[in-house]
Amino acid sequence: MLFFVNDYGHGAHPQVLEALSNTNFIPQPGYGSDSFTENAKAKIRAACQCPDAEICFLAGGTQTNQIVIDSLLKPYEGVISCVTGHVNGHEAGAIEHSGHKVLALPHHEGKLCPEEVRAYVKNFYEEEAFEHMVFPGMVYISHPTEYGTLYSKQELTALSEVCRELKLPLYLDGARLAYGLMSEQTDVTLQDIAQLTDVFYIGGTKCGALCGEALVFTKKNMPCHFLARIKQKGALLAKGRLTGVQFDALFTDGLYEEIGRHAIRMAKLLKDAFIEKGYAFHMDSPTNQQFVILNDEQLKHIGQHAMYSRWEKLPDGRTVVRFATSWATTEEDIAALKAIL
Amino acid sequence: MLFFVNDYGHGAHPQVLEALSNTNFIPQPGYGSDSFTENAKAKIRAACQCPDAEICFLAGGTQTNQIVIDSLLKPYEGVISCVTGHVNGHEAGAIEHSGHKVLALPHHEGKLCPEEVRAYVKNFYEEEAFEHMVFPGMVYISHPTEYGTLYSKQELTALSEVCRELKLPLYLDGARLAYGLMSEQTDVTLQDIAQLTDVFYIGGTKCGALCGEALVFTKKNMPCHFLARIKQKGALLAKGRLTGVQFDALFTDGLYEEIGRHAIRMAKLLKDAFIEKGYAFHMDSPTNQQFVILNDEQLKHIGQHAMYSRWEKLPDGRTVVRFATSWATTEEDIAALKAIL
Amino acid sequence: MLFFVNDYGHGAHPQVLEALSNTNFIPQPGYGSDSFTENAKAKIRAACQCPDAEICFLAGGTQTNQIVIDSLLKPYEGVISCVTGHVNGHEAGAIEHSGHKVLALPHHEGKLCPEEVRAYVKNFYEEEAFEHMVFPGMVYISHPTEYGTLYSKQELTALSEVCRELKLPLYLDGARLAYGLMSEQTDVTLQDIAQLTDVFYIGGTKCGALCGEALVFTKKNMPCHFLARIKQKGALLAKGRLTGVQFDALFTDGLYEEIGRHAIRMAKLLKDAFIEKGYAFHMDSPTNQQFVILNDEQLKHIGQHAMYSRWEKLPDGRTVVRFATSWATTEEDIAALKAIL
Amino acid sequence: MLFFVNDYGHGAHPQVLEALSNTNFIPQPGYGSDSFTENAKAKIRAACQCPDAEICFLAGGTQTNQIVIDSLLKPYEGVISCVTGHVNGHEAGAIEHSGHKVLALPHHEGKLCPEEVRAYVKNFYEEEAFEHMVFPGMVYISHPTEYGTLYSKQELTALSEVCRELKLPLYLDGARLAYGLMSEQTDVTLQDIAQLTDVFYIGGTKCGALCGEALVFTKKNMPCHFLARIKQKGALLAKGRLTGVQFDALFTDGLYEEIGRHAIRMAKLLKDAFIEKGYAFHMDSPTNQQFVILNDEQLKHIGQHAMYSRWEKLPDGRTVVRFATSWATTEEDIAALKAIL
Repeated sequence: MLFFVNDYGHGAHPQVLEALSNTNFIPQPGYGSDSFTENAKAKIRAACQCPDAEICFLAGGTQTNQIVIDSLLKPYEGVISCVTGHVNGHEAGAIEHSGHKVLALPHHEGKLCPEEVRAYVKNFYEEEAFEHMVFPGMVYISHPTEYGTLYSKQELTALSEVCRELKLPLYLDGARLAYGLMSEQTDVTLQDIAQLTDVFYIGGTKCGALCGEALVFTKKNMPCHFLARIKQKGALLAKGRLTGVQFDALFTDGLYEEIGRHAIRMAKLLKDAFIEKGYAFHMDSPTNQQFVILNDEQLKHIGQHAMYSRWEKLPDGRTVVRFATSWATTEEDIAALKAIL
Repeated sequence: MLFFVNDYGHGAHPQVLEALSNTNFIPQPGYGSDSFTENAKAKIRAACQCPDAEICFLAGGTQTNQIVIDSLLKPYEGVISCVTGHVNGHEAGAIEHSGHKVLALPHHEGKLCPEEVRAYVKNFYEEEAFEHMVFPGMVYISHPTEYGTLYSKQELTALSEVCRELKLPLYLDGARLAYGLMSEQTDVTLQDIAQLTDVFYIGGTKCGALCGEALVFTKKNMPCHFLARIKQKGALLAKGRLTGVQFDALFTDGLYEEIGRHAIRMAKLLKDAFIEKGYAFHMDSPTNQQFVILNDEQLKHIGQHAMYSRWEKLPDGRTVVRFATSWATTEEDIAALKAIL
Repeated sequence: MLFFVNDYGHGAHPQVLEALSNTNFIPQPGYGSDSFTENAKAKIRAACQCPDAEICFLAGGTQTNQIVIDSLLKPYEGVISCVTGHVNGHEAGAIEHSGHKVLALPHHEGKLCPEEVRAYVKNFYEEEAFEHMVFPGMVYISHPTEYGTLYSKQELTALSEVCRELKLPLYLDGARLAYGLMSEQTDVTLQDIAQLTDVFYIGGTKCGALCGEALVFTKKNMPCHFLARIKQKGALLAKGRLTGVQFDALFTDGLYEEIGRHAIRMAKLLKDAFIEKGYAFHMDSPTNQQFVILNDEQLKHIGQHAMYSRWEKLPDGRTVVRFATSWATTEEDIAALKAIL
Repeated sequence: MLFFVNDYGHGAHPQVLEALSNTNFIPQPGYGSDSFTENAKAKIRAACQCPDAEICFLAGGTQTNQIVIDSLLKPYEGVISCVTGHVNGHEAGAIEHSGHKVLALPHHEGKLCPEEVRAYVKNFYEEEAFEHMVFPGMVYISHPTEYGTLYSKQELTALSEVCRELKLPLYLDGARLAYGLMSEQTDVTLQDIAQLTDVFYIGGTKCGALCGEALVFTKKNMPCHFLARIKQKGALLAKGRLTGVQFDALFTDGLYEEIGRHAIRMAKLLKDAFIEKGYAFHMDSPTNQQFVILNDEQLKHIGQHAMYSRWEKLPDGRTVVRFATSWATTEEDIAALKAIL
């Protein structure tokens, strides 16, 4: 059975696993004070061209979103996200569980519009009773978005400027950042992101690691005693080396980029195959997630040979289906898929 | 430099790492619905002789404690723990962060006394104003305790009976369970624990895994929609296979026991070395943590050759120091340590 | 200056104040165990024709909403409300602060549509990943709504049936219930509400009391140890008599109805005055809040003589303004207002 | 039946009730922006000789403690209190419910020892693993304490100095402040408290009001957007006038002092009566709460004529009983009590 369900269905990229093996017998202190973690931080700082970046590693994406948002917001503040944002719909209420409202604005192919953010915040402070409402306290975006789409450098710059004007920290969820950075249709670099956001994370779990996300505070703005905050939320790994070693490997010899590049190349082949066979797409995604529209017959037929994710039902009865590629996808997989389309 | 700082200073036991390699390219669904996780659950159920056990895997110990306690308690309830319990002192307030008071009772070599638990609860309900106080809602213990000590089967049975009499769930934190089970001075088996407690966890992080704890609900009492609760707390691993594969390996061919047995043997050698050289112990620990009393000169001298953890300062100026062994400790390590004592 | 800002701008209805005076020197136990509170409960049970009703008194509306919703929901559940619901927009995030998402559905003149509730819940459980989303756990409505509108008996019955079908408790916020019950355009009685909802509150603060809301659990469903839950949230009044005496007075000799009837009569006169003078209304409200559309000139002119609340700006530049009546509004007030229109 | 159960068993001091009557028909804006609240603030600022004091009014003591502590602490911080502190034992876990541990130190007749506070904090930062523990973030005391005892000016000054040295805000719970200020055995004035603490509250509920506490931030340190924080916790009264009018009355013509003075005089008579009749005291209280030791026979006999509160059982089987006086206690009450002793 061909596997296109998601980008976290396999273990780790072989070089990541190899790094875990190679370092296995070197004793190190716990809780992120090991030398592998230090190395990983140094390499990420260099890759971001952000020598002041304050970095820590967490196990997963929802955990990272919850900790960042709860740490940056005051109790009476909420986080602006587009309605399709991961924090708004697919984290089982993790943000609200930590006490904060998600202030949902419309999405435009999964993206926030800077002007709409400005208007929302301006209107808020013009309300007579704004102290009885939830204060907008920060802005959350993801890149790639839930639909695999990407902000252009111009869009990201405009959003960043609005956030600075409004004194709202801008947080970028990079769960699938490798695929965003390596897309052929992007002009946004890792350095751009480090410059334009206040905090962002470099996704590991969905980009070749066993687990782990690298959280980067770009403006010397890591909340005080962040380790205690992480511990208090049950998110501090005793063996901090687990994430340290993996990110050290991911940022050695361009592995993170290579993982992204490969998956993007596979996604391109996959997209071409669907196009060639006359399938329609729900949205034009330049990254590793492709959203194809299938009728019931196609669903069934393809489902006998390949695994995918059902996304949503369209009003006309057809189904949007996601095919995802990763470091583990092969040209043979794509060819086999094409053969059955 | 010799390493006796803790039992989580190395990577994973080689067989655990090998299992990760062997399964790396087999695609699986996420969030714990993979086949490795199913296998691990089946093996743990068998090891516990508890066919009805409901099991899930989490990344770390504080996370597990926080989720279990918050899920089992009603909002107005607190958890009874001895004052030295991990949840009371060393989890950065994770329990209170989730809304619950730790009701601290005296400790006896790190253990709770069943009679004191009964007396505390009886007194509580005799208070005129008990509805203005924190209701005792469950009992937390660890085995081994913070001091490396162990409950005897008689002690654990007595505590279990008191808990049932008082209708309080009994939760056992087994962060270092391998060492407790394999101690030469214990009569408590894994099956006993499954029978006498309502929920417990089998520690992986400190017993040979890269990360991970196996949480076992023994009485068909897993809280409803537990996956959503875990997700909401940011604790759901996308690659559930990471913990599944590791626990599958740990419970294959007696590896978990072997890890415990080896560390216990190393601890015995270490203890004998200290005894032979005339050192005093702070507490008589039958497990892999040994608490030795050192004066300043000894601290310095040993510290030039071996790493350990400082525990506490005694009134007489001497220091209690912890030496811990693990799967990675070798006879050569012990011999080298002995040579410098 | 004429006062139409809201219905909580004066002290208490004179009979309520008199009751406080008359009982002032009678000593009573605290925390709601006084005899006045008992009397008030008995009278409310009788008025609801719900002899099993479990009742308690709280100081304010947001507090009541927060406590009810947090007590009824499981941690992973959210509350369905229409997007204009008070809990969604005007309680400074009190619901999220207690850990729960407000699941906002469209409003229809401030009301929820039963069919939309059913569709939302059905769709939720058809999602593949629903355990990663916020479970719908109860339904919140207010009556009158934020726009002063009312559910008909048929609408309320339909919503109640949908809730029972879906096993979702139905909670009715009656901050202004007196005005809803005494509207000339309603067929919904207090007994209907007690029968059709699972829990509701009878507003005191906005209906003639100094403070206080009577929370009524209609189906023997008061959460266990509710007093401890209230205390824990800082909401337990030491002098429970303060709310007991007031609600005892409000439910003696039909005072609560009289307060509602008077305000409705004043609102009718006010409405007629605006209509006669040719003003337009934003919504047709059958209760004590009237939403009038004013242009800038009218805003300024009327503002020199009367106080009102600004509600919202219309796209055409005009402003929706709220005029509210209460027990304290007099025919003279209305006549004076009419004179300046 | 004579009433000595507590100091909140009656309604309000007649002058407070009169003020509510006198102002009843004057319309005012809501949520604390009324003129009575402004007057009350001005009078309290004057009484404290603290022209910069930032003041707000809340309904009750547990609510006030919870809001102050949660607003002043960072998420990873706890509050130091003596073990007998109200926040530690009698608020149903309100502090933990808001996420914070109560760090309980020994009590000395209900009071904290400054040296013990300093030692605790110094030791904390000397721990190797302090980032895994709960940071001490502020200090809570009450005056009078739970045992009716008082800090001397020297003791309060010493504690204040230690707090400043350690950069911990000092918060004083003045639920019964009137009785503390008017005790014959105190040298601590309201001005001293305003100077020596960072925030404190002047109790209304237990000192003659129907409800209400005046929270005073003495160092221009009211947390930002405090109204929104209060609203979010369900603690914002719509009719802010209710507390405003009452505190305006309490701080007019020395009423608050008069209420304290009267109760203290009654307590003195009561104490003398018990002494004269040969009863023993559990603690020597200089305020309105007197803790008398009774045997079972006395308990029963007195209980037939007078109501009191049971406090605790002594090891010898006798019972500590609290007799409290208030503005409503009369000389006749005391004489009648004496007659039955």
